[in-house]
Amino acid sequence: MDFARSYGPWAVIAGASEGTGASFARQLAAKGLNLILIARREAPLRALADEVRRANGVEVVTASIDLATLDAPQKVAAACGDREVGLLVFNAGADPNASYFLGAKYSVWADLVQRNVNTMMACAYASAEAMVKRKRGGILLLNSGACYGAAGGITTYCASKAFMLCFAEGLWAELREHGVDVLTLVMSTTDTPEFRRLMAERGLPVPPGIADADAVAALGLERLPHGPIQNWGEADDQIGMAGVSAAQRRERVVMVSDITKQMFAKA
Amino acid sequence: MDFARSYGPWAVIAGASEGTGASFARQLAAKGLNLILIARREAPLRALADEVRRANGVEVVTASIDLATLDAPQKVAAACGDREVGLLVFNAGADPNASYFLGAKYSVWADLVQRNVNTMMACAYASAEAMVKRKRGGILLLNSGACYGAAGGITTYCASKAFMLCFAEGLWAELREHGVDVLTLVMSTTDTPEFRRLMAERGLPVPPGIADADAVAALGLERLPHGPIQNWGEADDQIGMAGVSAAQRRERVVMVSDITKQMFAKA
Repeated sequence: MDFARSYGPWAVIAGASEGTGASFARQLAAKGLNLILIARREAPLRALADEVRRANGVEVVTASIDLATLDAPQKVAAACGDREVGLLVFNAGADPNASYFLGAKYSVWADLVQRNVNTMMACAYASAEAMVKRKRGGILLLNSGACYGAAGGITTYCASKAFMLCFAEGLWAELREHGVDVLTLVMSTTDTPEFRRLMAERGLPVPPGIADADAVAALGLERLPHGPIQNWGEADDQIGMAGVSAAQRRERVVMVSDITKQMFAKA
Repeated sequence: MDFARSYGPWAVIAGASEGTGASFARQLAAKGLNLILIARREAPLRALADEVRRANGVEVVTASIDLATLDAPQKVAAACGDREVGLLVFNAGADPNASYFLGAKYSVWADLVQRNVNTMMACAYASAEAMVKRKRGGILLLNSGACYGAAGGITTYCASKAFMLCFAEGLWAELREHGVDVLTLVMSTTDTPEFRRLMAERGLPVPPGIADADAVAALGLERLPHGPIQNWGEADDQIGMAGVSAAQRRERVVMVSDITKQMFAKA
């Protein structure tokens, strides 16, 4: 597969400053894609942009945007301009709070939902609209095992990830006949700066055997044509963290989408 | 159980004008609770308020609020005033669109998410905060089988319901030691005016054997102390629509919440 022909010439990475986001940036640049890098912090974005420009000779645009704000989708659209975006990687979405629901003020959860749900969906809409017209493209939504069921202490985070799971499934079912790939990559614990900060804050060691950020990004890009779900560390037909395999969920969404089409949906 | 002592003296019903919302209003008034009825349309709210005042002698307040607007949570709070709300029934959340994601303009999905996710979460926060202080109360979130996986044609609706499923699970795990009950009642197809309109629009007959709105409301109130999930038509330990029983999900959320507490969460 010529990756750049399918998913180029430009890729947007939302949440690109470090961790898996930076891994995606490096790997996509190595495949010849130009990049639009988005995150809150300007300095690491610029450093990453300089690095991949030098290493791969691609064009890189950076935009410092807080994805938790109401106008973030408009700012992302402005950063993209009229560039032809063939790939959206929505990589933002960690929960820096890890607090009980009533243990943080409400605005903390409003911000988390704004970023993980509202902004994610708006970015997907804008990308999907353009991609369907071109009959090609990809939408890659970085997810967490938390999507398969909640835990007290990370309630809103789990809920936002469950939103993403079902959003990716439905969007995959709707866009696949238009040549646009949708995948949600369900990560397990991954060795990122964010995770190391979380552990350090709590005086906990980084557990052995956790996923490598570069390997996670590589898997996402490899599995992009095989949505809607790829679970880290699991074969497509393996019944793992969710009690159900990605293949079983795919079969289910195809079946239910057909029924829904007959019953409800306006084209 | 003295229902009014546990969940009174006031109940808020968001989405109260008809269908299951109206059934909840009638049944709660019959149990002696005063009601704060919220929906967009004023006329049916007032008619319902008059009816239950006459039938049960309870106090009823109505407020015409569009739950899809940004300031809806503030308006709900204003409608509640300083009344002691012991029960929140979040019954709004149908998808009047049933369109493909790109088949409707973006604002349609933004509104749906604002109501089903953002406003729902904000109302739950305000209620939970007051209830935890009083060490009693209930939060009942009306859900749909769509929460267990998406279908093309109702993508955003499914995603918003998946959010609610995990939100209810996590909140249940967090609030149960504070004497506050959380339940999400996962409805199957139910005979409501909304459903009949949807079928009529599409020239389809109302299928036989669908759930009765009064029975759905009665089940929700009966099962409120037994969260986090009640699936319509399924015993607690029955493996039905989700491929997993409510009891199995309860066991899972307790286990994972314990691990999360040790690993991550600040109290």
